[in-house]
Amino acid sequence: MTEYRVSFDQVDPVMVPGGALLSEAAVRAGVQIAQPCGGQGRCGRCAVQVEKGEVRRRSTLRLSAEDVANGFALACQTVVVGNVVVTIPEQETIERHLTTERIAAEVKPPPGYDPQRDQSLQRIHLTLPPPTMDDQRDDWSRLQTAVRQQTGITNLTISLPLLQKIGTVLRAENWHVTALIAETSQSSIFNLIHLLPGHLPADKPLLGLAIDIGTTTVTVWLVDLLSGQVIAQAAEYNRQIQLGEDVISRIIYAGKNNGHAELRKLVLQSINTLIERVAQKSSLKNPQSSIVKAVIAGNSIMMHLLLGIPAESIRLAPFVTAVNHLPAFTAQEIGLNMHPEAPVTCLPGVASYVGADITAGVLSSGLDDAIDTTLFLDIGTNGEIVLGSRDWLVTCACSAGPAFEGAGVRDGMRATSGAIEEVWIDSHTYEPTLRIIGETQPRGLCGSGLISVLAEMFLTGVIDKGGNFNTHLPNKRIRQGENGLEYVLAWADESWHGKAIAITRVDIDNLLRAKAAIYAGITVLAESVGIPLESVSQVLIGGAFGKYINVEKAVQIGLLPDKPWEQFNFLGNTAVLGAYYALLSQTARQRIEDIAGRMTYIELSADNSFYEAFTSALFLPHTDAHQFPTVSQVVMESGSHVVE
Amino acid sequence: MTEYRVSFDQVDPVMVPGGALLSEAAVRAGVQIAQPCGGQGRCGRCAVQVEKGEVRRRSTLRLSAEDVANGFALACQTVVVGNVVVTIPEQETIERHLTTERIAAEVKPPPGYDPQRDQSLQRIHLTLPPPTMDDQRDDWSRLQTAVRQQTGITNLTISLPLLQKIGTVLRAENWHVTALIAETSQSSIFNLIHLLPGHLPADKPLLGLAIDIGTTTVTVWLVDLLSGQVIAQAAEYNRQIQLGEDVISRIIYAGKNNGHAELRKLVLQSINTLIERVAQKSSLKNPQSSIVKAVIAGNSIMMHLLLGIPAESIRLAPFVTAVNHLPAFTAQEIGLNMHPEAPVTCLPGVASYVGADITAGVLSSGLDDAIDTTLFLDIGTNGEIVLGSRDWLVTCACSAGPAFEGAGVRDGMRATSGAIEEVWIDSHTYEPTLRIIGETQPRGLCGSGLISVLAEMFLTGVIDKGGNFNTHLPNKRIRQGENGLEYVLAWADESWHGKAIAITRVDIDNLLRAKAAIYAGITVLAESVGIPLESVSQVLIGGAFGKYINVEKAVQIGLLPDKPWEQFNFLGNTAVLGAYYALLSQTARQRIEDIAGRMTYIELSADNSFYEAFTSALFLPHTDAHQFPTVSQVVMESGSHVVE
Repeated sequence: MTEYRVSFDQVDPVMVPGGALLSEAAVRAGVQIAQPCGGQGRCGRCAVQVEKGEVRRRSTLRLSAEDVANGFALACQTVVVGNVVVTIPEQETIERHLTTERIAAEVKPPPGYDPQRDQSLQRIHLTLPPPTMDDQRDDWSRLQTAVRQQTGITNLTISLPLLQKIGTVLRAENWHVTALIAETSQSSIFNLIHLLPGHLPADKPLLGLAIDIGTTTVTVWLVDLLSGQVIAQAAEYNRQIQLGEDVISRIIYAGKNNGHAELRKLVLQSINTLIERVAQKSSLKNPQSSIVKAVIAGNSIMMHLLLGIPAESIRLAPFVTAVNHLPAFTAQEIGLNMHPEAPVTCLPGVASYVGADITAGVLSSGLDDAIDTTLFLDIGTNGEIVLGSRDWLVTCACSAGPAFEGAGVRDGMRATSGAIEEVWIDSHTYEPTLRIIGETQPRGLCGSGLISVLAEMFLTGVIDKGGNFNTHLPNKRIRQGENGLEYVLAWADESWHGKAIAITRVDIDNLLRAKAAIYAGITVLAESVGIPLESVSQVLIGGAFGKYINVEKAVQIGLLPDKPWEQFNFLGNTAVLGAYYALLSQTARQRIEDIAGRMTYIELSADNSFYEAFTSALFLPHTDAHQFPTVSQVVMESGSHVVE
Repeated sequence: MTEYRVSFDQVDPVMVPGGALLSEAAVRAGVQIAQPCGGQGRCGRCAVQVEKGEVRRRSTLRLSAEDVANGFALACQTVVVGNVVVTIPEQETIERHLTTERIAAEVKPPPGYDPQRDQSLQRIHLTLPPPTMDDQRDDWSRLQTAVRQQTGITNLTISLPLLQKIGTVLRAENWHVTALIAETSQSSIFNLIHLLPGHLPADKPLLGLAIDIGTTTVTVWLVDLLSGQVIAQAAEYNRQIQLGEDVISRIIYAGKNNGHAELRKLVLQSINTLIERVAQKSSLKNPQSSIVKAVIAGNSIMMHLLLGIPAESIRLAPFVTAVNHLPAFTAQEIGLNMHPEAPVTCLPGVASYVGADITAGVLSSGLDDAIDTTLFLDIGTNGEIVLGSRDWLVTCACSAGPAFEGAGVRDGMRATSGAIEEVWIDSHTYEPTLRIIGETQPRGLCGSGLISVLAEMFLTGVIDKGGNFNTHLPNKRIRQGENGLEYVLAWADESWHGKAIAITRVDIDNLLRAKAAIYAGITVLAESVGIPLESVSQVLIGGAFGKYINVEKAVQIGLLPDKPWEQFNFLGNTAVLGAYYALLSQTARQRIEDIAGRMTYIELSADNSFYEAFTSALFLPHTDAHQFPTVSQVVMESGSHVVE
């Protein structure tokens, strides 16, 4: 097959066979091109400029004729048919880190935490009788006997790599060692995972990791398993983002050529970088020997991609995972940069779209122990919803799409520097006031800003309950833009990039669909168990997203049910918190297993009532005004909605 | 550090730092030089010729002044101090394969073998209900349920690599698969090791390996686990031989630089080559998927070296192993070229010098089930001895040295083409008659030839009971040679290599020490339990060595106790046979565990009575003639021993 040379800026050219995609050539060259849609040619974000040479464009979706004339091409849809020179536009490089670790949480160990009782890891001091001509027992028997005498453990296992070391360690330390022993998931079987030199001081920390792999953000907490204290926290964007912003795009990307391996490598890079970072923060020199346990939460797709398990069946009806309850693995098997023999628990999920992030969240939110009926929401790309109490649990997932994460909205962005996070619109002048993250010029709108602007536009009558603009208002911010009608939040000369920031009619529709999906999920779930929403006594909101939204405005757009604000409780990252509890306590870990077993999963795509509920919720706040009495009140008071 | 160029014949020169050994340069160049003593400078077999350039000889042991003048140097004792050109003498290249697989055994499955009842592997047909919107269980739960319904197994585990595959296999096969399930060493825990496409015909063989790793020879049997039939056998010299002929030399070599890894690689090469060979013999295309279980026997040192476990403590007082009872491993962990998830059992040993070859041998010889007192011997470099019955078992090991394997004897060699395997000496003319392996000219003496010539010389009065030559006999074969007195078996013009083949006084002393060690071991063991040797009702002899010796002659030199020949039973390779039984039957495997637990080990080096017994046994046949009544009778009748 003929090979062609592809040259990217600043890196060595690569040779690829004719017919290869530009995106494949980029991978080979080690160049990163964003493919938020997973290489489906839908998002247009992988556009590059072909400076020289011949290519064939399979699709030019989202490129204008002028773009194409200027050599622009979608990397994921353009085939190499000759030697080419390619430039990657600067705006396409990906922001790699959360600008601030705003999400660092204040965490306290569960009250009464007792490592002796709760922890599956034991660190015990051993002094073995050295072998003599009268006592020629082998090293491993000698060690097993010493452990049995001290702990009563009769069934101790060991891996080959450690077996290769014990003789050397025992002799070098003159038969005084500290053994690290882990309870396994099989009852009464324990595993020797490390043999440390000498007798370690009792106050020397014993380190573990609580990990949450979010579709967008990966979070790692370094924990002292003896005191239960969180020693360091770190988070960064999941590096898989460059190959797909949402889970569906990633599953699609995983199905291509080497896609699965690429995605696995990227998320491991994220986790291992964060391990390095928490180690640095706590002046830990050698995480490979001192971090000896981990618990991982994450949605089912993240879990499959982490473990290299095909996720294709999750995307296609009837939407099943390869595995919900994962066996125990070692850090080495998974590829984590910590003690290779460290036991790693991947928490159990319930279904394709209700994963271990939710079971962990239900535990850490206390929902599974609540006396009164409680609603738990985790809003991200997907909205996962759990309703229940200590007696029963039902759950569903609704594909809200990434609108609230800033994707699918023209001027949407993540909650980083320059994001408009809150908007107030004057009900007389229709002029906006903006709050921007980082005291800089605005660059776009993040999720809370989008909810805020939608609520304000509705309450002030800039849009009606169907999301239609009132073009009769005396303010030129409501104008005909490139993409149809829009409301301008910042003029070109006010913005960071010199382009106007506006919210368009298309954006509004995407936001309406997102909020309708979530609200419809809530109502269907409540109906499925015959519980009216009024009798829900509290609403718990997990996920980083939930932490920054304004409840009042979320209720005003009909995203959250209309309840008194004191019934809402924002919990932050409930998934990593659940992983943290499971890391500390076997009881907590077992409780998560029980939660996964107890939850009744309702598949919305098989549920006709969901579509009805969804359609009813596509309005502001809802077709049924009775479901939002306080919002109706505000709307009446503000006197807006002259246009109907 | 200065680097120098070392050039060997026919390979590319290599660069090594000044001070490197020639043997290290050879490893780097990929050139094999025999180091039977493990690189201690004792055997002189690694002599090479330095044609050009400068070296420093640390030792010239076994080299004459003339050799040194001609550039000869010991590769393991010679340091590079300049660029050198080295030639490797042809006679030092190692014979790589047993010239004939004389040891192919006729084996029958144990009577009444029933794979359903005895075998730890099950192959079961599964038909799973495909997932639907009403049944969204994950693939792994679905599989577990199907297995439970068919077999009652409730605790099924799976590895990550297989978990990565199940979804694809299940869908490709439309939910009809054949599962391969192995009982683990933990009660009631089973492991899914393979998922085969479709429903395999019940008569398709299910393949496993019985492996014996001898210090000298590695043996592999390919077995159909359903019928119990041995399908193919293969054996070759253990490739570790080039780095040490006996276990002590190998332990020493393992302690050097990368020695452990080199030895591990070599024995794996031996095993994997043999796996390939048995696969070829049985027209098996893909051993990596179709061989799914293995059981390994071997002495403790071989087991440690195979698994990369340091063996140094075995060599040094108080002589302990790192591990006798090994946990279960997968083929991948060990490095065997078969199904990576195949469970591999390394059989248990008892002590440093009584390994799994002996526990397996005790099982396959039936000693542990014998009603009457039985003696079991495995004679090789070490002699392992077991005495006992179904009620009790004692064991010891005596370091006989490799004399009977042809090492430590000037014209000694292995039992390959050209080896003198039997000798008759005319009691009047003192002329010998030889039987040679392979109808060729003689090249040396193998173990059975050595026993034979020693017995004949003794009975005809060529030597006296102390091993001294009778120089008064009228035959010029008894002569003063380069190494002192000797008896010539073949003149220079009769031999293959044009050099005379003789047995020297030094050789005789080595052989006396070897046979005395074994006989002393037998007597000490019998004394330890207060049982006279006369009441031993049968003598079972394992090991390839035992298969070719002449009992009468072995009794005449005092190697074996003086008992009627019908009480001796030569069993061949009892170790591989024991591995084979354990491969087929869980009961047999458990019996080997029980044997290892039941055996009382007697450490001879800590036993003064052993030294007395050894000294008494250094004569032909023994200082105490009463122990060898039939030999005394023959000696009297032959009228020899005029010289005393």
